[in-house]
Amino acid sequence: MRERAAGDDSGAVADPAAVDLLGLLAYAELTAFERLADDARFAPTLEDRAALGGMAVAEFGHFRLLHARLTALGVNSDAAMAPFVPALDAFHESTAPGDWLEGLIKAYVGDGIAADFYREVASYLDESTRDLVIEVLADTGHAALTVDRVQAAIAAEPALAGRLALWARRLVGETLTSAQRVTADREALARLIARGRPDPVTFGRMMGRLTDAHSQRMASLGLSA
Amino acid sequence: MRERAAGDDSGAVADPAAVDLLGLLAYAELTAFERLADDARFAPTLEDRAALGGMAVAEFGHFRLLHARLTALGVNSDAAMAPFVPALDAFHESTAPGDWLEGLIKAYVGDGIAADFYREVASYLDESTRDLVIEVLADTGHAALTVDRVQAAIAAEPALAGRLALWARRLVGETLTSAQRVTADREALARLIARGRPDPVTFGRMMGRLTDAHSQRMASLGLSA
Repeated sequence: MRERAAGDDSGAVADPAAVDLLGLLAYAELTAFERLADDARFAPTLEDRAALGGMAVAEFGHFRLLHARLTALGVNSDAAMAPFVPALDAFHESTAPGDWLEGLIKAYVGDGIAADFYREVASYLDESTRDLVIEVLADTGHAALTVDRVQAAIAAEPALAGRLALWARRLVGETLTSAQRVTADREALARLIARGRPDPVTFGRMMGRLTDAHSQRMASLGLSA
Repeated sequence: MRERAAGDDSGAVADPAAVDLLGLLAYAELTAFERLADDARFAPTLEDRAALGGMAVAEFGHFRLLHARLTALGVNSDAAMAPFVPALDAFHESTAPGDWLEGLIKAYVGDGIAADFYREVASYLDESTRDLVIEVLADTGHAALTVDRVQAAIAAEPALAGRLALWARRLVGETLTSAQRVTADREALARLIARGRPDPVTFGRMMGRLTDAHSQRMASLGLSA
């Protein structure tokens, strides 16, 4: 059982930082699935409701990929997810959307900056983990739906823009705080992020990339960042 | 466009009763998806939570099949679902489970008898519709999960059996009332059910089949029907 084909990582000794990130993202995808399915109830039409359902299903597909990878690494995925449950649950409780547009914006703007952050973290990991992380963080159709529905809503009622921009700014703050706290609390992840890049300049550049991408998303919605 | 291959029902004039049943089941599957994703939050373990998520995804697959069939028949699926939204929403509001076991029992016992009823209705329709109905009403893994978890819970706490049996009996009453009302309110469906089988004896036999299957489900849970 020691002989392995190249690229087959079953039985490999798993990098604790990779296991942490995979476990974190597995739980994030499971909750994204549940949250989108739940937010579907806010949808103004059956068509939008079914569209959100389809995106929820895509997130569940991502959860399955992460679960399969953890299993292939010989890791119990429940155990890998468990450390991240309290922090992610607390985050979602403190950022529960109050209506359809807030839900769309949370999934596009909030999940967008979180995805950018986790992609940065994954860039320090082995190629196979990095590729999987990029795959599971891919947009499942949210961007187009959110841009369309938010722009239309603001066109119909311009006063909405202020409230929605405020909501988006609050989300970004909470998301970054939560993502940083979650990773800092896990020794393997914290070391990974620190590895070779302890200087404030590099960190500042990463934050710059994150906020640039965020500003682009806000602009596409017609909201001031 | 009038020439069609055998079995290709695109462009066929749709039977209004078939459209009604497909629309009803499409909305039932969409809500089943949302409900299971929502009930997943009651799950005592991440494993059970992911299992319920997987079943929710399977129900969404059924919704997609029904949506595709309606589209192939030239019917807008939102329009086909719309007449059934108020009744199904009201049903789910009046039978919201209070915990994990109640949710499992609702999906197994309540959806079970509803599925039996809709299969009986579909038996009066064309073969292709009937086959699709049988496919989308197939068990997605609920039976095994529910039997296992409910039996274990009752073994650990025998006093639970009384409360759960009461819940199941309430569900069956509400489910049959709702299913009969929904079909009776739609002229095409009501005519379909009446077609050739208006006599109380035939109706009584159908009810007998439904209650027999229900009793078997209750027995498998260790609950008195």
